[in-house]
Amino acid sequence: MQMGEGVEWALHSCLNLAWAEHQAVTARKLAAFYDLPPAYLNRQLQALARAGIVASTSGPRGGFRLARAPEEITLLDVVVAIEGGREAFRCQQIMRDGPGGRSDVDYRRHCLVSQAMSRAELAWRRELAAQTLADIRDSVEEKHPDAPRMARNRLAQPAR
Amino acid sequence: MQMGEGVEWALHSCLNLAWAEHQAVTARKLAAFYDLPPAYLNRQLQALARAGIVASTSGPRGGFRLARAPEEITLLDVVVAIEGGREAFRCQQIMRDGPGGRSDVDYRRHCLVSQAMSRAELAWRRELAAQTLADIRDSVEEKHPDAPRMARNRLAQPAR
Repeated sequence: MQMGEGVEWALHSCLNLAWAEHQAVTARKLAAFYDLPPAYLNRQLQALARAGIVASTSGPRGGFRLARAPEEITLLDVVVAIEGGREAFRCQQIMRDGPGGRSDVDYRRHCLVSQAMSRAELAWRRELAAQTLADIRDSVEEKHPDAPRMARNRLAQPAR
Repeated sequence: MQMGEGVEWALHSCLNLAWAEHQAVTARKLAAFYDLPPAYLNRQLQALARAGIVASTSGPRGGFRLARAPEEITLLDVVVAIEGGREAFRCQQIMRDGPGGRSDVDYRRHCLVSQAMSRAELAWRRELAAQTLADIRDSVEEKHPDAPRMARNRLAQPAR
């Protein structure tokens, strides 16, 4: 069970948009930052836009910027935007076909195996929801004070 | 990001093996329990055997049984046996290609995005590791005291 690489790309791109402050940045420039394929990164950015995490503007100075403050964007927001909100554990209610199984019971809610797996999923989501983009930005800046300047410099360069 | 359906099948089959006590049960009978495809369930059982969760014996009375006490089998053991032990978040170290990126740094350990995602993964694993097959068995028996008897009855029937 693995996420797509889009989660890594989206998180780093959001961080770069946090450093770009209110400047709109094109998908091309965000992709050039890490030498990523622009068309594929653009798909992740569109997913972030649908989730209200980034906003896009068109025109010669258009591009993407964060749609809300980095303090208001959690890691869970980004993961759900890219990977969808479904639980990782897939309960197909096999108990319906077991002894005493009933077709009118929703085993996704009543099966104790399913509940145990959901508890773990909840712990994961809670931890993702407790960490914001601002937390990561601040911890990066504490360790690498020149990170914002380096990011802005790279974003100011014309994309190849 | 979703697990395969094998995790659900494996967890329920382990629970049935806990109720079967020290009787060996064939893959065919375990599959018939929930009307699952025996060949595919057999693949999950082989994975559980490789992980030391179940043991198989051959011969006319052969089959699968738990290789250790249900108290010694955690949900994490079963998930890792079926899905593998890799982290869900895929860090491809894109920072290597970013400004100041270094090829001699392992960003899976040093990137703060990667670390934040790992913290959430750890919370998930910790919760899965805190729950054993015995915990689930006990909570099922508390809610449905006839579950062990029903399971043994079904397992005693010849598989179709």
